[in-house]
Amino acid sequence: MDEFASIRHWTANRQPASWQHARGVALGIGDDAAALDFGNAEDGITGDKRLLLAMDTMVESVHFSERTMRDEDIGFKALAANVSDIAAMGGVPLHAVVSVSVPRAYGAERMKRVYDGLYSCAERYGIAVVGGDTTSSPAHMVISVALTGAVEAGLELRRSGAKAGDAVFVTGPVGMSAAGLHLLQHAGASRWAEGSQRLDDNSYGVLCAAHQRPAPSVLAGRLLLKSGFCHSLNDVSDGLSSEAWELAEASGLRLVLEERLLPKSGSLSTYAASVGVNPLEWMLYGGEDYVLVGTVLRESADSVKAEFHRHGLPFYVIGRTEEGPPDVELIPLSSRMDGAGAKAPRGHRVKVEKKGYNHFGT
Amino acid sequence: MDEFASIRHWTANRQPASWQHARGVALGIGDDAAALDFGNAEDGITGDKRLLLAMDTMVESVHFSERTMRDEDIGFKALAANVSDIAAMGGVPLHAVVSVSVPRAYGAERMKRVYDGLYSCAERYGIAVVGGDTTSSPAHMVISVALTGAVEAGLELRRSGAKAGDAVFVTGPVGMSAAGLHLLQHAGASRWAEGSQRLDDNSYGVLCAAHQRPAPSVLAGRLLLKSGFCHSLNDVSDGLSSEAWELAEASGLRLVLEERLLPKSGSLSTYAASVGVNPLEWMLYGGEDYVLVGTVLRESADSVKAEFHRHGLPFYVIGRTEEGPPDVELIPLSSRMDGAGAKAPRGHRVKVEKKGYNHFGT
Repeated sequence: MDEFASIRHWTANRQPASWQHARGVALGIGDDAAALDFGNAEDGITGDKRLLLAMDTMVESVHFSERTMRDEDIGFKALAANVSDIAAMGGVPLHAVVSVSVPRAYGAERMKRVYDGLYSCAERYGIAVVGGDTTSSPAHMVISVALTGAVEAGLELRRSGAKAGDAVFVTGPVGMSAAGLHLLQHAGASRWAEGSQRLDDNSYGVLCAAHQRPAPSVLAGRLLLKSGFCHSLNDVSDGLSSEAWELAEASGLRLVLEERLLPKSGSLSTYAASVGVNPLEWMLYGGEDYVLVGTVLRESADSVKAEFHRHGLPFYVIGRTEEGPPDVELIPLSSRMDGAGAKAPRGHRVKVEKKGYNHFGT
Repeated sequence: MDEFASIRHWTANRQPASWQHARGVALGIGDDAAALDFGNAEDGITGDKRLLLAMDTMVESVHFSERTMRDEDIGFKALAANVSDIAAMGGVPLHAVVSVSVPRAYGAERMKRVYDGLYSCAERYGIAVVGGDTTSSPAHMVISVALTGAVEAGLELRRSGAKAGDAVFVTGPVGMSAAGLHLLQHAGASRWAEGSQRLDDNSYGVLCAAHQRPAPSVLAGRLLLKSGFCHSLNDVSDGLSSEAWELAEASGLRLVLEERLLPKSGSLSTYAASVGVNPLEWMLYGGEDYVLVGTVLRESADSVKAEFHRHGLPFYVIGRTEEGPPDVELIPLSSRMDGAGAKAPRGHRVKVEKKGYNHFGT
């Protein structure tokens, strides 16, 4: 099969023309470029709207391996990472183009599964896949996705809008994906192959799913935008620390997080204890959780939280912002000992390192 | 340098904010996604406009190597290939996002040069670079670019609109890039290193430039769209044969090309003769020329050609379309001998193979 025949094979009849039409697609896969009636797409945006454009790439052996991700997961997550970017602007995702470069030896079946996962994600988020290309690769798979979205003009949620005195929040637990990756790298593949119960165990399955099938919440971003109280927003792709630092630097202030307020899942704690890892390490420096982190007007945090709960979504206030040069600090659990074994004084702060997520320690 | 610092370093101050603003950029590089006032971009489109979206990827050792492309060329060509896709819809390019995955050993200097070339292309075509990412790669460089554009709603030039009796045209010589690649692979690098005159020779320099710095013409696409006579359009990325077959299949008719009408540059002929290659092989099956191929209402071909010439652009009628199942045929030069050494009869046709461009024979 030549390239076009392959792409047609993998993409034909995946999304009905009428459904694509509702997303503004005048011309989809199969020409030089897609043609999109952006102004008329049914995206729920009223009034003037802006076009959002994001792009994200996943590289085999850097972001995934056969041990950590099934082919379907690769396609799903490549698109989901972009959905997270659009959600972090408060927008609605619309149109995706996809480029895969892949060693010939991987064969058509594996490519089909990558596309299966991609379309599964597209269906979940109502995204029209409108183009892309495939090329061969000498050694490893690389998948790039570019995604458009729409947002009310002027209301997009930037990193730079935080104000001193804001409440800092996250919209879900952090560190789950890093724990899942650790599990998959250290125990996952062999246990899986042996059919052990361990991975079927619900708590561990949740960790693997967090890594393999992240579920960014477009609704969370929309609720934040519509609340009118959200001053800054980011998605947790490179770890809470890294994203908090971005907010601090873009907005020019200090973020103070409280360890006791950080949402920590039971499965994360259990697994971390079983392998002797400090869960805080994953929670601060693990990436790819694709929850949202941002700041809201402090007085409105409760009402935003209530609105999230009405929609069945979690919302955790984890700290606050302060005047000052860009910085991120953490107030540890008061029971935690300091380096010398003494109990840290109440309200004691430690600096949060500005380090990002390193997938495979490279 | 972390990823963000690097991207900022390579992209900072490349394009003034006021200039980006004129292209509709409300928020460029540095947040989760770019925010674009698509409706208000100064793109020369009047009335309802559609968003165009294209994506293209280049892979080291598949599309380029150190022998064939300088780092600046890689960045330039990755964007130019997408410009060609937008031009082939009759549109105007607007906003680019760029993703590069690169081995760490390549270092920051090489990345800077890739971006130098990319921005050089962006400047030439008035494209705002609004985002993207860099990731590490275990073995080879992969560069993906997604590009938006704008076009008058409903007037975009598709592959599927050719009508029987149309004139088939190309907007420039074909086979130049393939000849340049051959030269670079077989003689280029060593000659270059030796400082020989050979590559400084104008005719050979033209061939190398055709491969390394393709110059798609947005104006050509705009003239075709505005003429109202262009029924179908494609860009020559995978070779004239492959693109002609796409037009034939998308439009459901036969294309008949005449060898005597194909534009053949003198440098192509000279170089082909010097290395014993039939230039027709490069002209039909060589790719990456990024000229446009399409069909116009036959009676209007002369007026379109005159309009092209008024703008200093070439325009060559190379054949016609006929009723029939999708097919591409060539009428060889009447002086050409057939396989048995006999002179082919006048008007004799040969089938043009539906084969695409293979960069490195893989």
